[in-house]
Amino acid sequence: MMKSILLVGQSNMAGRGFIQDVPGLRHERVKMLRNGRWQMMAEPIHFDREVAGVGPAASFAAAWVQAHPDEELGLIPCAEGGSSIDEWASDEMLMRHAIAEAKFAQESSELIGVLWHQGESDSLKGGYQTYAAKLTAVFSHLRQALGQADLPIIVGQLPDFLGQEGFGASATEFNDINREMANVVAQDPHSYLVNAAELTANPDGIHIDAASQRRFGLRYYAAFANQEDVLAVLPDEAAQLGVLYQRPETPQEKMYRLSRAFALGQMSYPEFIAQLTGKGTAK
Amino acid sequence: MMKSILLVGQSNMAGRGFIQDVPGLRHERVKMLRNGRWQMMAEPIHFDREVAGVGPAASFAAAWVQAHPDEELGLIPCAEGGSSIDEWASDEMLMRHAIAEAKFAQESSELIGVLWHQGESDSLKGGYQTYAAKLTAVFSHLRQALGQADLPIIVGQLPDFLGQEGFGASATEFNDINREMANVVAQDPHSYLVNAAELTANPDGIHIDAASQRRFGLRYYAAFANQEDVLAVLPDEAAQLGVLYQRPETPQEKMYRLSRAFALGQMSYPEFIAQLTGKGTAK
Repeated sequence: MMKSILLVGQSNMAGRGFIQDVPGLRHERVKMLRNGRWQMMAEPIHFDREVAGVGPAASFAAAWVQAHPDEELGLIPCAEGGSSIDEWASDEMLMRHAIAEAKFAQESSELIGVLWHQGESDSLKGGYQTYAAKLTAVFSHLRQALGQADLPIIVGQLPDFLGQEGFGASATEFNDINREMANVVAQDPHSYLVNAAELTANPDGIHIDAASQRRFGLRYYAAFANQEDVLAVLPDEAAQLGVLYQRPETPQEKMYRLSRAFALGQMSYPEFIAQLTGKGTAK
Repeated sequence: MMKSILLVGQSNMAGRGFIQDVPGLRHERVKMLRNGRWQMMAEPIHFDREVAGVGPAASFAAAWVQAHPDEELGLIPCAEGGSSIDEWASDEMLMRHAIAEAKFAQESSELIGVLWHQGESDSLKGGYQTYAAKLTAVFSHLRQALGQADLPIIVGQLPDFLGQEGFGASATEFNDINREMANVVAQDPHSYLVNAAELTANPDGIHIDAASQRRFGLRYYAAFANQEDVLAVLPDEAAQLGVLYQRPETPQEKMYRLSRAFALGQMSYPEFIAQLTGKGTAK
């Protein structure tokens, strides 16, 4: 049975990196949940907002399938831009909907973990004072509702470009949230912390840019794979990404890429067929 | 309480029209369901495939809110590209997922109708022979599961460009499916047929193009509003669309448009603020 990963939190988990800024990571063994079923992954994986883009999940998944050459991984996109920790309480719609989606996914996959990134919306007005208790309750509810008491939860820290400009200017207390987050993870035998050092922002000052999201996803994967906190930048992030980007395209991936271009009107039917079959286009 | 509409069927309900081909129809009183909650509508409304684009729902909704000046309409996107009628049986994932989404929506809205478009995937190999019974079962299950025995279902016919080229070439029996569809609607006091005359295709030969989807949505709305079949092209489709396109942008819609451009890196923060506040950009 294929494996799956639940994606929850706010916009930097949903992803706002600009898709055109980084190479793609389409992989025939990486899927995403659509209408309760699995489709080959394409970015944006999330669709919470029209500006959804690159998040950490694609490079996480690319690293996972590279390390598991005979398995498939499915991504369950449930993050919601702008959501506060209160909006993830057990009786709130975001949590109830995420549980419902994950349960549909569990019918055809084994859920092996959760990627969580949230806190920008609580990094102001003393939100950190009650954050640890609320975050602990979120993790507890996820595991209880999904019937997996030991479900690993990977927790990304907030990036240090917050609190300065644009939409990020109001998130001045991100260091307090990061401290509370680390405390929660330290008390939880099945959650792991992911360092956000060196990540850079979109011009909006709040969203992690696409190149940084690719690196962040590798850190999420290292924490997941080694079941330990990732407390610093990985020594080989650029090299790891290089390997993932240079992987040759499979026939099925090529078919998806060409079908997309054809469906979007970017090539004619004869040209589509010619490229699909590897024959040159007639002049 | 706001009203809502469930969107189900295959790709031409999900929408594959090219977004850049037609003016937008953003409206502050038209929403779409995301993670169980309502967001202001933006196209693509569906996200079943990376090639999702313009479907009939946006112009349907624009016509509806124009006729209901004090109300809001929410769209529930559950159509799935390529799905056959068998994949909409009561125990299949697509139906179960659509019911789950609609029930989340029903917590905060009154469901007033269903827009259905499906049949291309059954327009071959004698699929029409069992189509009417299966379609009747779909409509019956939708109403039963959603607890609304009289729920209106608006049923679009298959366009006559099918069966000829590209991805549409195999759908040769679309006239048979259309006949069976009309028979089902004729037997059902709360479903209404929508004519597909004059609709034109994307280069792929199967997907209704964006300009035609805008017209199709107006026909869906006429059938819904008048509770009667729309058996021909409406006499004033271009004029109706002209009115919808020329509606002045509201401050909230402007904020969404500018926020999108800013979040996508298309303008600087000072320029964003300047445009938002209506002040000229400093030189």
